[in-house]
Formats: sequence, C-alpha cells, structure tokens
Amino acid sequence: MSIATHESHNQHISQQFNQSLSELRNHLLAMGGMVEKQISDAVDALINGDTELAEAVQVTENLVDDMEVLIDEECTQVIARRHPAASDLRLVMSTVKMIADLERIGDEAAKIAKMAIRLSDQGKPTNGFVEIRHIASHVSQMVNSALDSFARFDADRALEIIRKDHTVDAEYATAIRSLITVMMEDPRSISQVQNVMWVLRALERIGDHAANISEHVIFMVRGKDVRHMKIQEVEAALKDKRGK
Amino acid sequence: MSIATHESHNQHISQQFNQSLSELRNHLLAMGGMVEKQISDAVDALINGDTELAEAVQVTENLVDDMEVLIDEECTQVIARRHPAASDLRLVMSTVKMIADLERIGDEAAKIAKMAIRLSDQGKPTNGFVEIRHIASHVSQMVNSALDSFARFDADRALEIIRKDHTVDAEYATAIRSLITVMMEDPRSISQVQNVMWVLRALERIGDHAANISEHVIFMVRGKDVRHMKIQEVEAALKDKRGK
Repeated sequence: MSIATHESHNQHISQQFNQSLSELRNHLLAMGGMVEKQISDAVDALINGDTELAEAVQVTENLVDDMEVLIDEECTQVIARRHPAASDLRLVMSTVKMIADLERIGDEAAKIAKMAIRLSDQGKPTNGFVEIRHIASHVSQMVNSALDSFARFDADRALEIIRKDHTVDAEYATAIRSLITVMMEDPRSISQVQNVMWVLRALERIGDHAANISEHVIFMVRGKDVRHMKIQEVEAALKDKRGK
Repeated sequence: MSIATHESHNQHISQQFNQSLSELRNHLLAMGGMVEKQISDAVDALINGDTELAEAVQVTENLVDDMEVLIDEECTQVIARRHPAASDLRLVMSTVKMIADLERIGDEAAKIAKMAIRLSDQGKPTNGFVEIRHIASHVSQMVNSALDSFARFDADRALEIIRKDHTVDAEYATAIRSLITVMMEDPRSISQVQNVMWVLRALERIGDHAANISEHVIFMVRGKDVRHMKIQEVEAALKDKRGK
C-alpha cells in the first residue's frame, strides 16, 4: 500500500483510533530499539570478555519481557474497544506476532550474554570469533531493516531481509562445519568451541526471527500471508499483488 | 422488531458465534494431533534409522504449516465479524499464539527428522540415544498435556507442565555435559555426537513451546498473563485468582 493510500484510508478513522495505532507502532519500535541494543551489547560483551556488560544484557531482558506483555495487552484493548477492520486489524494482529519475535530475539541475546560469561571463565578462545563478528553484523542489520520496513510499511525492503536470511543460514552452516573440524584437530578446545557454536546458533535464530518479522510486515502491508513460502513464491506473490 | 424476533435473532448470532469458537478449538486440536505424531515419528525414525519415516515427517511439516495459516485466518475472521469480548477474545488471541508454538514444534520435529537422515548415513551412534528417548518421552507428554489442558480449560494442569519444563531443562543440561565428555574421550565421535546434541536441543525447544502453550492456556482460562514469571509467581497468581 502506498503511503498516500495508507494516509487517506486512515483519514476517516477517528483521531483516538489513529492515536491508539500510532502508540502501538511507537511502542513496538521502542521495544525493537531495546532488542537491537541487547544484540550489540551481548556480542560486544562476548568479544571483549566484558562480564559486567553481559550481566546488564540479562537485566534488560526483563524490561523487554515487560514491553511484550504491555504491547500485547494494548493490542487486545484496541481490538476490544475499537473493532479495527481490514488493514488496521492486520496491523494489530501483525503487531501481536512481531512482539513475540522481538521477545525471542531478546531471549537469544540473553543466551549470548550467558555464553559471554561462561567463555570469559574459560579464557579467551581463538576460534570462531571472526565468524561470530561476521554473522552478528549481518543479523543485526536484518533486525534493523525489519524494524525499518515496519516503520515505513515497506514490503520490498522486508523481502530483501527474507533473501538475506538464506545467506546467513549458509554462512552459519559453513561456520559450524569449520568449528567441528577445529574440535577434531584439537580435542582440548571442545568445551570452548561448543559454547561458540551455541552463540552462532543463537545468532542464526535471531536472523530467523528478523525474517519472521519481515513476513509479518509483508502481511500487514499487502494482506498476503507469505510464511512457509519459498522465496520465489514470495517474490511472485508480491509481483502479483502489485500488478493488480 | 418484536422482542421475540429480536431474541431469536440474537440467539442465532450467538449460536453462529459459538460454532465459530468451537471450530477454532477443533482445528487447533487437530493441528496439535498432527504435531504430536510428528514428534513421535521423528524420534522413531532416528532411533530405528528409518529414513523413509523421516522423510514422511518432513512432508507432514507442510500440512502443519498450512493448518497454521488456515487457523490464523479463521481467528482474524472471527474477530472481524463477531467482535468477541472478554473471555471469548482471550480464547481467540490465545489461539493465534498457540498455533505459532505448535508450528514451531513441527519445525523442531522436522529438524530431528533431518538429523535422523544424517545420522543414518553416519552409522548407528552408540551415544546419547538413551537420553534422547528419555527426554523425547517427557516432552511428548508435555505437548499432549498442554493440548489436554487447552481442551479442558484446565489451568492447574497447565501449571504442572510449566513445572515439568524445569525438570526437562535440567535433564537436557546434564545430557549435554555428558556428551561433551564423550567427545573429549573419543574425538572420532565428534561429528556424530554433535548431531545427537542438535536433536537434544530440538527436544528441549519442544518442551519450551509446550510450556508456552500452557502459559497461553492459563491466560485464556484465568485472564492472567504469566509469561516471564518465575514458577513461584505463577503459583501465587493462580492461587490469588482462585481466592477471589
């Protein structure tokens, strides 16, 4: 939907209603900002062996959880009081799902923070940090773009993120294979490398959740449920809709 | 409109409404049944090296995905057409979330099926199968009980499942520790044991999702959002509500 259509659609809706929806949107973006910071802090804590920062990430997790409960309640209130329909209802229903994905991203960041503490006890590992940095930078960008595509109602940008998730999955698989080789060549490193692998897994999951958020954005903007579709099907579905 | 006609009109509406809600319930339980079968088939395929069964699990995943999209659409329709309020709205909103958890359980079962195929290529591993059987039986029971607590609106039963998830998490941690020792003692087993560890991780995630479903059941029945609460807080919240 173009911004113009979106705006004119909203024009006949009461101001209170608009305000509720715009509050929802702002709260989701605020929650997203917290989660983005959690990812970068967790990865920094890991790379620099900064256990204080790692502990701070675990504390922030509670705030993120509270945000989820709060926004979820707001969504229910908007439905109960304002009976949104069509694209407004899609916005609310998508918000319910997107905050669940954001909360899970926060969970994964907290797991990385936990591993940061564990790895700092074991001494600085020399393996896997390059891969962690690389994949972390990719998934952070994905989360950032997903929030941006939500803020701008931009389905094309959301599609790019789903494409990028395939690249991250491939990079993850390569990293895991190379770490298994490291373990085989140096069995003393097993315990440490295992923790690095859990971190990579958490990052890969963050990428998945960013892709989920993007699917919800596409549903919200285009009314097309593209979950479980192959990327070519998603591309076709979006073209299809645009042609109409 | 006479009062009689008006009442019969209302009765008709409420009958339709009840029918929609009962359809939602039945569809969720049907989806749950499919997912339960996926877990047991995936684990059987793994234990018996049955690659055909493993492939069947991967095919069923598509059906589970379709069910999610279908039920999700039904929930939106019920909200748009029938404007449910209070406990009816809680039922619909909880259903939206529970099917997302069921779909993710299906995903994890498909991952186990993938590992079953990979492990059958590597020859039968001797390590970790006891743990897999044990934890698989626990999380299968959890999923079954979660669906049951939903069907019966039974918040106390749901609470038991959340308690059980803590036991499973502890068993999972013990299993992982013992497998890391196995890898250290026999580095040739690393690649195989790593796959067993991914299976255990998938099972542990299934337990988490069963616990999530239970939290949604508690919200649906008691109107109390107990996500992110400690188990003691959940117990207190349920007692509190009952005392009123």
